[in-house]
Amino acid sequence: MEEPWSIGIDLGGNKLEAAGIDKMGRVRQRVRKSTNVKGGPPAIIDDVIGCIRALREGAETSPEGVGVGVAGQVEKESGMVKFAPNLDWRDVPLQEELQRSVGLPVIVTNDVRAATWGEWLHGAGRGCDDILCMFVGTGIGGGVVSGGQMLSGCNNTAGEVGHITVDLNGPLCSCGNRGCLEALAGGWAITRLAREIVLADPEGGQLMLEMAGGRIEEINVATVARAVRGGDPLARQLMDRAVYALVAGATTLVNAFNPCRLILGGGVISGIPELIGRIDKGLRGQALSAACSSLLVIPAGLRTDAGVIGAAALAVRTFAGK
Amino acid sequence: MEEPWSIGIDLGGNKLEAAGIDKMGRVRQRVRKSTNVKGGPPAIIDDVIGCIRALREGAETSPEGVGVGVAGQVEKESGMVKFAPNLDWRDVPLQEELQRSVGLPVIVTNDVRAATWGEWLHGAGRGCDDILCMFVGTGIGGGVVSGGQMLSGCNNTAGEVGHITVDLNGPLCSCGNRGCLEALAGGWAITRLAREIVLADPEGGQLMLEMAGGRIEEINVATVARAVRGGDPLARQLMDRAVYALVAGATTLVNAFNPCRLILGGGVISGIPELIGRIDKGLRGQALSAACSSLLVIPAGLRTDAGVIGAAALAVRTFAGK
Repeated sequence: MEEPWSIGIDLGGNKLEAAGIDKMGRVRQRVRKSTNVKGGPPAIIDDVIGCIRALREGAETSPEGVGVGVAGQVEKESGMVKFAPNLDWRDVPLQEELQRSVGLPVIVTNDVRAATWGEWLHGAGRGCDDILCMFVGTGIGGGVVSGGQMLSGCNNTAGEVGHITVDLNGPLCSCGNRGCLEALAGGWAITRLAREIVLADPEGGQLMLEMAGGRIEEINVATVARAVRGGDPLARQLMDRAVYALVAGATTLVNAFNPCRLILGGGVISGIPELIGRIDKGLRGQALSAACSSLLVIPAGLRTDAGVIGAAALAVRTFAGK
Repeated sequence: MEEPWSIGIDLGGNKLEAAGIDKMGRVRQRVRKSTNVKGGPPAIIDDVIGCIRALREGAETSPEGVGVGVAGQVEKESGMVKFAPNLDWRDVPLQEELQRSVGLPVIVTNDVRAATWGEWLHGAGRGCDDILCMFVGTGIGGGVVSGGQMLSGCNNTAGEVGHITVDLNGPLCSCGNRGCLEALAGGWAITRLAREIVLADPEGGQLMLEMAGGRIEEINVATVARAVRGGDPLARQLMDRAVYALVAGATTLVNAFNPCRLILGGGVISGIPELIGRIDKGLRGQALSAACSSLLVIPAGLRTDAGVIGAAALAVRTFAGK
């Protein structure tokens, strides 16, 4: 690449992905590795450094900077990874170590925040000062831009949209609380409930069980979605329940943040795109009319590339011209 | 007053209050009137102009500007009052009309937003870049400062913290939705439920009924609070239910916005100050630990003056030096 470019890295519990991104937010080069969680922080950091080196080798110019999105809690400014359960990390000074090793400016942020940067600067939120991204995958996460500013909050944890309480008497969440949006509509929660229901009612759950090859432990969100398309009433009930919770959660978020665009992404949304229309419709019947008078409910634009694109864009925004 | 000062106005459905505020955020002069709702916009605007004139007569210098907080939806920039149910107003160009009449710069905002400005600049949020104010009165409203910026959102309605869904199967709210925080813990909701319960169980509700002079329609939040102090089990149950909802709502807000200070005000909070400690304690058991690691849960500092002080402070911030 000859034009200005930067490096975006998406570091998750399964996969480490690094990409060279041009100033239009396009992926120009890409390197992937599985995450060596067992090797601990030194092994993973070595792999990240290796990816950065590989991307630089093919380029004629030096990148403007490196942005990293990590699946975990990240301290603002220092880029210290406070806690990353999927990596089994606590207090790893990732930003500092990378910066020292690669001789480039590095900024580390949370992976979902990075994806929100991506959607804001190069995806479905482009040109808009007030967006809310909600990514529904195994868990539910998100990020908020308000008044042209990415919200970070007091401890850099703002935007935990999966842990808003939508049912104060609801089921236990992985966070320890009850009735979080994620505990009703996250991929893991839909999967958990589907398996419970099929176990309790094997006859009603016959189609889902067949679709999972007869193994309850193979039932997941995709199974439920396929069974809904196959006309299965139990699967439809399950999905309706999740939609009901997603509408309640989206209502809370629209009333509290009043975004211009509610951007929906993540594996559950991209696998079942009709959810977007259902959330949109439900929301308009429940949120304050003033809060949704200019609201657009739209799909994320960058799919699985949002993380690397956003991390790179954040690096450009932070370091360009410095 | 000789030093720089400004005028803050709090325009509600019952009461119109105007005050001369010094640069430290102190009330130096005050004028009150009951709101002439029947007279329509012209009568009320005349009264506001009269109040401004009265405050200026006693002063040696001209105020820097006028800030007005109105109980209703206000359009950003134009200060047009889109809808104010308590005033029976729709599309009243209050900011423009006042500005023309009084020959001073005028800014109009929502009353709860004005109170949040007050708490931020001169009250319990002073010096802090990330605060969330929740005012629990008849209804529940609030405002959010994040990253040193007052959030307004796409249609200037951000911060509707009373209309976050905490129980998706909960009771109907005045906004038309179900299970809003306000429908479970706002003054009107506690009152409604108390009357229903006493009606259904006159024996269990005997103390509350006595405290209300034997008239169910006189039972209100203060009755419930007094009965709790008197050891009444039914009243305690009612209050526990409201606290449970307030904790769920505060959990949602802390996880979504990650404020450094959660500032609690409004008539229900100031009437039952022990609620603050109960919300604080409950919250720490339910919110994400990273989101409340630096959180303070504290009472509002300006009580009923927050509105006039905040409106005046907003005017100074907007117009000073212009």
